[in-house]
Amino acid sequence: MPTTVDAYAAPSATEPLVKTTIERRDVGPKDVLIEIKYAGICHSDIHTARGEWGEISYPQVVGHEIAGIVTEVGSEVTKHAVGDRVGVGCMVNSCRECENCLAGEEQYCLKGNTGTYASVDRDGTVTQGGYSTHVVVDEDFVLRIPDALDLATVAPLLCAGITTYSPLRHWNAGPGVRVAVVGLGGLGHMAVKFAHAFGATVTVLSQTLSKKDDGLAMGADDYRATSDDATFRELRNSFDLIINTVSAPLPMRKYLGLLALNGTFVSVGAPPEPMEVPVFALFNQRRSFAGSSIGGIRETQEMLDFSAEHGIAPETELIRAEDVNEAWERVLRSDVRYRFVIDIATL
Amino acid sequence: MPTTVDAYAAPSATEPLVKTTIERRDVGPKDVLIEIKYAGICHSDIHTARGEWGEISYPQVVGHEIAGIVTEVGSEVTKHAVGDRVGVGCMVNSCRECENCLAGEEQYCLKGNTGTYASVDRDGTVTQGGYSTHVVVDEDFVLRIPDALDLATVAPLLCAGITTYSPLRHWNAGPGVRVAVVGLGGLGHMAVKFAHAFGATVTVLSQTLSKKDDGLAMGADDYRATSDDATFRELRNSFDLIINTVSAPLPMRKYLGLLALNGTFVSVGAPPEPMEVPVFALFNQRRSFAGSSIGGIRETQEMLDFSAEHGIAPETELIRAEDVNEAWERVLRSDVRYRFVIDIATL
Repeated sequence: MPTTVDAYAAPSATEPLVKTTIERRDVGPKDVLIEIKYAGICHSDIHTARGEWGEISYPQVVGHEIAGIVTEVGSEVTKHAVGDRVGVGCMVNSCRECENCLAGEEQYCLKGNTGTYASVDRDGTVTQGGYSTHVVVDEDFVLRIPDALDLATVAPLLCAGITTYSPLRHWNAGPGVRVAVVGLGGLGHMAVKFAHAFGATVTVLSQTLSKKDDGLAMGADDYRATSDDATFRELRNSFDLIINTVSAPLPMRKYLGLLALNGTFVSVGAPPEPMEVPVFALFNQRRSFAGSSIGGIRETQEMLDFSAEHGIAPETELIRAEDVNEAWERVLRSDVRYRFVIDIATL
Repeated sequence: MPTTVDAYAAPSATEPLVKTTIERRDVGPKDVLIEIKYAGICHSDIHTARGEWGEISYPQVVGHEIAGIVTEVGSEVTKHAVGDRVGVGCMVNSCRECENCLAGEEQYCLKGNTGTYASVDRDGTVTQGGYSTHVVVDEDFVLRIPDALDLATVAPLLCAGITTYSPLRHWNAGPGVRVAVVGLGGLGHMAVKFAHAFGATVTVLSQTLSKKDDGLAMGADDYRATSDDATFRELRNSFDLIINTVSAPLPMRKYLGLLALNGTFVSVGAPPEPMEVPVFALFNQRRSFAGSSIGGIRETQEMLDFSAEHGIAPETELIRAEDVNEAWERVLRSDVRYRFVIDIATL
């Protein structure tokens, strides 16, 4: 039997979020019922709710940075127990049969993973996200939150954290590797913290120097303004890996020119328009332009455990549920240091 | 004292090549004088001579696939001797001091390598290429031609060969690796032969099936037409590495969709216009779009030795020097199987 729960939902692509109720499915044998305590606000929430990444059905509850407590488990659940501190990220299911799922890379499921919101679940219903008091999720897509992590700030690790941790790991950020992070927002600030913790040399490339003190405090070794052309001259051929967290088209000739031999520019931000890539800039220094999408469940758990071990947490601003629309406007103005988290107790 | 030698040169960006004479520098202590026997015709020759890749000075002799015999060596030369069969590829010098040169990747010299033609040499003169009877080259940029390779067909290995060999090696084409080669021309046919010799599974993606029999004979396991949309549907997510030899913009969403998890699309053909890259197609399956430029001198020698050992040779059509303008027109129409070589004895 479905349960009715409180939530903030988008009634349409153009209206503000409103408080409403939605139905959560009954707790199945493999399901976990989570009482959501905190939900992070990701730029993707806004793009999706406003139909900018494709049409969706309404009302739609978004939110894929979820932290809470297990309040009920299905009869066959073995990984989680009532009272456990748990998290849910950007996906809640996948086919589990394709070679990518079997390799633990469910985010690249060849049949498409099931997003935490605005996705058609295996049972045909549309998934509803974390701006809500409860959610029911298959245990295999529920993460353990280590004791050392504060539940009130951990939620952004589930998207912003894994989205930057995964490419840094995949492209071997570590001692001797020169990493640049483009943009110091929700994703960028996590990229700086992880890259620094991995032992890489870290440079932030931000439009201005307004957040320089923060960036250096997070572990950056250098901080440069992209509004200054000298940045591109002076840092030419000097990075092994660039993590681009900006979701707007960039002048790629300039950015690719920053890469050293065999360097890779990885976009984790997603402009809807194609990027114009000058192929000669890739020939030179055998450069690559790559993309990366979140991370698998196993790697997400590894990222949470790593964060606990190394004292890494997102910088957050806790807001009341009724302030969510104002928070969205501030996200669009990049006026947040560095991630909003909704205190679901206020919903 | 410079020596006057015969050559075919472009008098301007718009006129046909004409027979003329040019000066070659005196043989310095580290120089090798080569009597050119054969010179391959590369599409780059045409782009460069016609000013399509930037302004150049005229008259200009092109040609960077050179095979010949050493006829004189400088007093300090140790690597080559009179009578040796040797080759020269796309570069004749580099700074030799930067980290890339020291790593044997002179093609990525941070001060810019010196091209075999239309490049300003370290002494300030403009380099002149291989459509000529003789050339003087520093011994470090002269390759040994193994005895097992036929001098009359070997020249295209010096550009088309190394340009495809190097990325196949760099991205580990080998047993179990699914390689696609886009375009079956001068570069593409070498890519097929090398990828097959490395043990990879090889698919040719060509506009039509007109060269299918040739492609299969060269070692391709499959051959598909890109004019047929079914190709893109059926081969979705199925290649680890795509070597793109086509120097025209491609519909990148379709081509990137062919890559499997962690797959890389490497362009070795160079459209002057930027390519439009949909970033979502890179996110999916963590794909990369890369470029690769020829290869270093050490790797070029390795490629020649490998070709000798495995009986790999370019498919060539030998032409007389006076037919070079007609051959260029045929290159532009893709009417060549698979590389023209000028018999310099006819010059």
